[in-house]
Amino acid sequence: LMHLFALEAYLKTSGKLPVNVRFLIEGEEETGSEHLGEFVRRYKDRLKADVMVLTDTANLDLGLPSLTYRLRGLVDAIVEVRTLDHPVHSGMWGGPTLDALSALNKILARLTTADGKIAIPDFYEGIQPVVGLEKERLRALPFEEKKFLKEVGAVESLQLAGERDFSVYERIWCRPACAILGIDAPQVAKTSNQIVEWARAKVSIRIVSGMDPEKSRQRLCDFLKQDPPCGAQVTVKPGTAGRPWKVDPVGPAYEAAARALKKGFGRDAVFIGCGGSIPFVEPLTHEFGGIPALLIGLEDPFCNAHGENESLYLPDWQKGMESAVWLFSERIV
Amino acid sequence: LMHLFALEAYLKTSGKLPVNVRFLIEGEEETGSEHLGEFVRRYKDRLKADVMVLTDTANLDLGLPSLTYRLRGLVDAIVEVRTLDHPVHSGMWGGPTLDALSALNKILARLTTADGKIAIPDFYEGIQPVVGLEKERLRALPFEEKKFLKEVGAVESLQLAGERDFSVYERIWCRPACAILGIDAPQVAKTSNQIVEWARAKVSIRIVSGMDPEKSRQRLCDFLKQDPPCGAQVTVKPGTAGRPWKVDPVGPAYEAAARALKKGFGRDAVFIGCGGSIPFVEPLTHEFGGIPALLIGLEDPFCNAHGENESLYLPDWQKGMESAVWLFSERIV
Repeated sequence: LMHLFALEAYLKTSGKLPVNVRFLIEGEEETGSEHLGEFVRRYKDRLKADVMVLTDTANLDLGLPSLTYRLRGLVDAIVEVRTLDHPVHSGMWGGPTLDALSALNKILARLTTADGKIAIPDFYEGIQPVVGLEKERLRALPFEEKKFLKEVGAVESLQLAGERDFSVYERIWCRPACAILGIDAPQVAKTSNQIVEWARAKVSIRIVSGMDPEKSRQRLCDFLKQDPPCGAQVTVKPGTAGRPWKVDPVGPAYEAAARALKKGFGRDAVFIGCGGSIPFVEPLTHEFGGIPALLIGLEDPFCNAHGENESLYLPDWQKGMESAVWLFSERIV
Repeated sequence: LMHLFALEAYLKTSGKLPVNVRFLIEGEEETGSEHLGEFVRRYKDRLKADVMVLTDTANLDLGLPSLTYRLRGLVDAIVEVRTLDHPVHSGMWGGPTLDALSALNKILARLTTADGKIAIPDFYEGIQPVVGLEKERLRALPFEEKKFLKEVGAVESLQLAGERDFSVYERIWCRPACAILGIDAPQVAKTSNQIVEWARAKVSIRIVSGMDPEKSRQRLCDFLKQDPPCGAQVTVKPGTAGRPWKVDPVGPAYEAAARALKKGFGRDAVFIGCGGSIPFVEPLTHEFGGIPALLIGLEDPFCNAHGENESLYLPDWQKGMESAVWLFSERIV
């Protein structure tokens, strides 16, 4: 919408556009963009562009224009543990007989260390440390711990998790993060005094630029299978291996975007990361010969993206349209 | 039935019983014997006895008469963990934000040590070590690891769990054992990339003679609540606190039972424990002034007790009836 109204403004005033604009409207992103690759390859000639502008990202705060230059990837796996062929009485057998939930629990507990690191060997291989200008930029970004905890809906007593020697922005954008997403087990209300014979969990790890998705997924799977407690039967089903993305936001396109955002919002744009994934960014820029991708979206911390009652902050929408007008006026190439 | 047919044999031959016999048939045991205490108190005079014979227990093996002299107790609790007030996107928040399933996982993983012990402070308080004659008796009992693993339905790779410095019989009868019975969490098939805000588990620990049930339950609850990962909100709901039971199987009643079993089965009876609980044994013997309790049942390792297709091994049934005849002929008091 931001871009459409910017174009409308051009057509209503000067009657023509300063650049050629091609729209690609994608409705499949939340379910994995299954058909996008085929579509882009088929209509490659009609989609050809010098710069790609993408508005699926967020501003760091209300009124603060933000250009996203890195996204995390994702690997996941389902781990299944079996110790027995049927549940047995916990009195008659408990002690020498390991229940599957305790075995699964031990396996999952090994994934992370007490100091917030992922314990899988070599898992951090390839990650370039955040240094120099990037480090400075991240350090300069506004951050309030209380505000962060409130926005995520944390219980009052909750403290920040993850690697203490990295800032919170680094932990979300530049460092892997592990979560247990689900567990299949007997429901608490339906338990009897039975040793559970079988259990299953889904583990997901966000990965970052420099890490190889296939290797990372393999390392996760190998680690889950390794050294099963008391020789329990462990099977692992590999899941997603989604690529992270990162550019060095320099060159004419990024400079033009920063100028346009500054004119539209009346303040300097910041360069930020995003902890989530937009899987098609990398393949799409690649398909068109490595063109720059400008990820400038208007989501704000209160927009409730992907949730109920999504919102759009109207003053920022206005500023976004103005920025888009300025961006089109830039002669990037 | 064993006792009924033994009594019938007396009535058909000599026409009268050598002792007075009172039957108490209890149909509520598997659901906690809620009304038994009240029943026994009300009809105390009519139930008065010098010895109590109970046939809810097992023989160690086919044809091997066994007298059970110790039962384990049970404590359990439900632990609930909350980190957030709603689930959030694992990309946008993962790293500094702890998911409830990982927090629960860490709490549960602390319950036991790598060498099979329960890690709750002072949990083993009060347990008398198995020594002397009891140790000798346990050591003399037949045990085959392969047979045990087959009977419990273990997967091929499974090794015995629990405390390695105790025999398997000691681990089941004389040592506490911890199991995770159930977990409430999102189902694996229904997960999305969400950080889970809430999770719950039921933990059960078998306790043994010498341990105080209320204290043990309190220790379990305190431990689950202690030092929550990243300050997660942890609530614990105490459950059962079931008393263990143990006698020293000496004196006229136990000697008489051993003699009767030997005559019926044609071989020496063994003295065994049971890892499960029969909660009314202790209150019932107590109600009648601490009378001896003879726990001599005919369950065998293949009887599938509490399962489908329960069976009774007919040769042992025959031997049990003969033993009962001999037992009634003993003048215990």
